[in-house]
Amino acid sequence: MIQTVKTYFECFNSANPRGIADLFAKNATVQDPYGAPVKAGKDAIMEYYKGAAKKGTQLVQKSPTVVSQNRVAFAMTVVVEAMNKEKNVTDADLPLGNMEIDVIDMFEFDDDGKIVTMTAYWDAELNIRKT
Amino acid sequence: MIQTVKTYFECFNSANPRGIADLFAKNATVQDPYGAPVKAGKDAIMEYYKGAAKKGTQLVQKSPTVVSQNRVAFAMTVVVEAMNKEKNVTDADLPLGNMEIDVIDMFEFDDDGKIVTMTAYWDAELNIRKT
Repeated sequence: MIQTVKTYFECFNSANPRGIADLFAKNATVQDPYGAPVKAGKDAIMEYYKGAAKKGTQLVQKSPTVVSQNRVAFAMTVVVEAMNKEKNVTDADLPLGNMEIDVIDMFEFDDDGKIVTMTAYWDAELNIRKT
Repeated sequence: MIQTVKTYFECFNSANPRGIADLFAKNATVQDPYGAPVKAGKDAIMEYYKGAAKKGTQLVQKSPTVVSQNRVAFAMTVVVEAMNKEKNVTDADLPLGNMEIDVIDMFEFDDDGKIVTMTAYWDAELNIRKT
């Protein structure tokens, strides 16, 4: 699970959405942020990461990956350059331009070591710094 | 919710379990770590924090408090001095002596601003450094 988190960061930061999608189970779900509509299934997840994992958006891990049972969690900062309306893959009302977003991600794994749920915790008003 | 997290740290680090218990709803639950038996209700929570929030155990926040809907999460390090068998309030098999434990806590709030669930994510093998 810790290795999967490493691979997730590597794939995201090299704009490799297929590599990320391969980490997920077939019927996995993504919710970003928690409370937003759920993206369900590999195709929806692939589409989501095609939009999210682009040149100009980098994830920087800010805490060790903690593990409990079949779950992992970690703190990170999303460093975004030149956000525009097309780039915003979330349902949140993000500012345009450069920003840093503080996020805690939680992944839940199945018995095959694949991610079955990804939930991102952050708030568009409280956890964003314009840079 | 962010203020409650601040108060939680202040109360924990001044060994004030009553102050912590006041932040929780009447029927709240605590699970530390995720997967361990759940402590339910104010009395059980008070007992738990009487054991946990003692001189020689300090919480150091390591990430901003992130917020989504009625949940908050944050990364922290638990700095423990002179752990012995009586001091271990968790069901995990902790080493004795000094250590640092990397943890991500998640709190869920009710409409009155009280914590209804506290879940701590960490692993006794993967997230502990003897110091």
